[in-house]
Amino acid sequence: MVVETAKETPSGVKIISHVLLTRAGFIKRVANGVYTLGMPAQKMAMKIESIIRDEMNKIEGQEVKFPVVMPKELWELSGRYHDIGPEMARFKDRAGQDLVLGMTHEEAAVHFVTNTVNSYQKLPFMIYQIQTKFRDEPRSRGGLIRVREFTMKDAYSFHTTAEDLEIHYYQQHQAYENIFRRIGLKNFISVQSDSGMMGGKIAHEFMLLTPDGEDELVICEKCGYKSNMEVAESEIETFTNTNDLPFSEVFTGEHKTIEEVAAFLNVKTIDIIKAVVFVEKDEKNPIIVFVRGDLDVNEAKLRKVLQKEVLPFDASNDETLAFGNIGLIGLSENVTVVYDKSIENRQGMITGANKLEYHITNFNIGRDIEIKEYFDVAKVKAGQKCKNCSHELKIENGIEIGNIFQLGDKYTKSMGMTVLNEKGESIHPLMGCYGIGVGRAIASIIQDSCDEKGMILPVSVAPWIVHLCPIRIDNEKVRELSFDVYNQLNNIGIDTIIDDRENVSAGVKFADADLFGMPFRLVISPKGIEKNELEIMIRSTREVIFIEKDKLLEKIQELVYS
Amino acid sequence: MVVETAKETPSGVKIISHVLLTRAGFIKRVANGVYTLGMPAQKMAMKIESIIRDEMNKIEGQEVKFPVVMPKELWELSGRYHDIGPEMARFKDRAGQDLVLGMTHEEAAVHFVTNTVNSYQKLPFMIYQIQTKFRDEPRSRGGLIRVREFTMKDAYSFHTTAEDLEIHYYQQHQAYENIFRRIGLKNFISVQSDSGMMGGKIAHEFMLLTPDGEDELVICEKCGYKSNMEVAESEIETFTNTNDLPFSEVFTGEHKTIEEVAAFLNVKTIDIIKAVVFVEKDEKNPIIVFVRGDLDVNEAKLRKVLQKEVLPFDASNDETLAFGNIGLIGLSENVTVVYDKSIENRQGMITGANKLEYHITNFNIGRDIEIKEYFDVAKVKAGQKCKNCSHELKIENGIEIGNIFQLGDKYTKSMGMTVLNEKGESIHPLMGCYGIGVGRAIASIIQDSCDEKGMILPVSVAPWIVHLCPIRIDNEKVRELSFDVYNQLNNIGIDTIIDDRENVSAGVKFADADLFGMPFRLVISPKGIEKNELEIMIRSTREVIFIEKDKLLEKIQELVYS
Repeated sequence: MVVETAKETPSGVKIISHVLLTRAGFIKRVANGVYTLGMPAQKMAMKIESIIRDEMNKIEGQEVKFPVVMPKELWELSGRYHDIGPEMARFKDRAGQDLVLGMTHEEAAVHFVTNTVNSYQKLPFMIYQIQTKFRDEPRSRGGLIRVREFTMKDAYSFHTTAEDLEIHYYQQHQAYENIFRRIGLKNFISVQSDSGMMGGKIAHEFMLLTPDGEDELVICEKCGYKSNMEVAESEIETFTNTNDLPFSEVFTGEHKTIEEVAAFLNVKTIDIIKAVVFVEKDEKNPIIVFVRGDLDVNEAKLRKVLQKEVLPFDASNDETLAFGNIGLIGLSENVTVVYDKSIENRQGMITGANKLEYHITNFNIGRDIEIKEYFDVAKVKAGQKCKNCSHELKIENGIEIGNIFQLGDKYTKSMGMTVLNEKGESIHPLMGCYGIGVGRAIASIIQDSCDEKGMILPVSVAPWIVHLCPIRIDNEKVRELSFDVYNQLNNIGIDTIIDDRENVSAGVKFADADLFGMPFRLVISPKGIEKNELEIMIRSTREVIFIEKDKLLEKIQELVYS
Repeated sequence: MVVETAKETPSGVKIISHVLLTRAGFIKRVANGVYTLGMPAQKMAMKIESIIRDEMNKIEGQEVKFPVVMPKELWELSGRYHDIGPEMARFKDRAGQDLVLGMTHEEAAVHFVTNTVNSYQKLPFMIYQIQTKFRDEPRSRGGLIRVREFTMKDAYSFHTTAEDLEIHYYQQHQAYENIFRRIGLKNFISVQSDSGMMGGKIAHEFMLLTPDGEDELVICEKCGYKSNMEVAESEIETFTNTNDLPFSEVFTGEHKTIEEVAAFLNVKTIDIIKAVVFVEKDEKNPIIVFVRGDLDVNEAKLRKVLQKEVLPFDASNDETLAFGNIGLIGLSENVTVVYDKSIENRQGMITGANKLEYHITNFNIGRDIEIKEYFDVAKVKAGQKCKNCSHELKIENGIEIGNIFQLGDKYTKSMGMTVLNEKGESIHPLMGCYGIGVGRAIASIIQDSCDEKGMILPVSVAPWIVHLCPIRIDNEKVRELSFDVYNQLNNIGIDTIIDDRENVSAGVKFADADLFGMPFRLVISPKGIEKNELEIMIRSTREVIFIEKDKLLEKIQELVYS
């Protein structure tokens, strides 16, 4: 057993799967977000890949392999060569040709099937690959949770009609549920999600629920509404208070934040209109969102409304805006304004006066300003009501472990792929795409199943099923029986690892076995041989079973296969 | 069966495996030297990979996965960041860090085991991976024969002694023979080879013998000497003719080539001393090699002698050299001269006079010039004698299908990796590395086994074993029996593909089946059903067997497993 534990945790590492994968020597960092997988992690990866293949083949997937390196021209056809920013790695070859590293393979998939899959008779059609990808993430983190280079299963389906795409889409959804259950994940859900750079409209993400997750998920436990925060909606609360008083300026001095103003004027934050400033990427003119004082702006929703890349803007040093006192009336003309639905027709509100140190009170929307259109750009917060069933919403954290998208004809249209439909007409087929990261699946399994001693790996994907710890391996009987059992287990297809280190105490071997987290630990010791009692410990429950030598294989088979 | 044949051969494609892989739709070109593998090729790749894994695991290999993208720093440690030229792809990430695409993984392997494999007790130690690589070949060619992006199995072994490295090296040699036999190759040999940019001394290449191969191989059929031309040696012929005449200049006018001079002076080419001009890369001063008139210079051997990168030099416009009349005496001092062993102590020779339009006759080495050292830099030609047994040498062409290297401590030393030996001393372990390209293996199998109709794939790696051609699939009985047999065969583990296209003639289906080259073609037709005679054709021999429906499965199992 050459795999050695690293013993110490690298500094600054907080996420449990990262700590355990590093300590157990499953991964070794090569660069920021780039890792070598050691044998145990690679064995896990192959077991996961094999389960993924099985589920993809069941729904008629054909496995192919697209290249990692692709020519610029392919990505220019779809428009993404320019749409995607620095997360796509680009280089020139020796002949000066522009190449990119694939971060996803829609273009390659369309290129591959164009002219081959050319008739409705060949649809639906689904291809997939398991291949290395590189995505230059600005912030890689958490070991295998978010890396820059990763192995991914990505699938692409082609359809003549939206109904057919939808049927396949839900087959994929089912296949994904099967995959995640089969690799041993327990706490996962699927949520509606944003389609982001992929294009298309309907998308789901599969999420592992864990406090270490960076994604926020909005969940209704009553009706089952589940959504990524990025696209989550809540019921829009309506308020019926009326106000007949005229609006007036009031001195608020240094009180600038919503909380300060609320306290100073003795009002609730929901009665204040908050101004949040953004700016379009590479542009200067501010975008101001007006939202109810107790809410925040959901940037993803705002981007969708504006169809632009927007960034938060620090207005504190901007001389054209009365920072801390920005309000609805009297803004300069170069400002883009978005009104959130949370302030629709509110009366008696507090808003900035667009004049330093002053706010306006008794501001009535409708009376004091006419607003033509409101948008839902507020971030849902826990306790708000479900838009479907009015039940109280819950927010949990999650890690994305898979995603599926209905892409529509974005790629087939831009890349000019057509098929003949039943009427003999040339149409652009509709596409779906479906991804799972293998490395992230490894991390998620550990994240989902570990304790303070180490990993607790499921039988279906553990690198080995049995971790054999001979105690006093210098004892001839121990040595002989240990290797005998080791060979027998491997021969009957029970992957077994043996800790054949000499001069290492039982305590150290047990600690390593706990860290490694194989489903069953088998101890063979002089005392055990004497008493004809071999010891099996079940890692997940820590239950210990003593068994006679002759019944060992049968018992382990029973434990593994039942 | 959605895999469609491309029917036409792309223009300019000459190599048979390239023609067949393209026509059968196994591969599709994405960029120069970059291909997508379709399902059949990917299935073949996986079967080949599985055989490779099995052989690597048998000799205690541990499968890992190194990253495709690596930081510059790792390659600076070994010195190769600067030693390797434009064949290595380089780019900067969003943070400005220099990254490279792995073309081989010695650096990553040493990085991975450093500090973990730290004692003689853990050696020998061998790791391998099957991973995508990118090498910016100046001339990709022949479909999967020489590409820029490829999947490769690369293994790295670590040893305390040269003896131990040698033992493992020959285990790898045996494993490679096993792999190539198991994937169905017949005409392959292993030859001594140049270690090139890998460093180290002893190296072998496995070569598929084929006229399409770009490598020249020198073979002695008597003693078994086999060598890549790059490092091939022959017996150095000795000549005993003596010459007492004084040397003298002779007017040869426009006669400049060896053949012209030989004809003009009525001598044999072996009695002329040829001057071949090279130049060091990025340098100006000429390097002149003097070699026997009938021989050529082997550049690889010359590079080894000079320990420099040299390029052929066109001296026809060089005013400092008497082009066509370059000789041994009277050369300017800025010229580097190398004397090949083929001219050692020759008497009565013709050489250039270093004066335009003049040669020298009756030139005696030893008498007219003193030469201290000769080097073997001549290219072996067919008919020369084996240096071991004096048998006549043969030259064949081949394609490299695998290579193994004894690297020594080049990488462990430069990268500072140490282990403790039995005496407790810190030493740099010795390394070996071992590579096989999976895509090139696919091409080689086809190159080695095909006919004018298509591929002839071996059972061990064919994507499918049985190619089922139902004739008149619109006939209900044909349809029912065909899918019944199709399912039964797949259920008993015999991978079967069915050509279920309607409105396609038997002729077209048979032509496609021949092109695809699956080991067995099964025909189910109305007539066959009526006569209770299903037809199996063995692709390699074209033997046809008629079998009753009830005995079909058994017969196919017999054919496959016997």
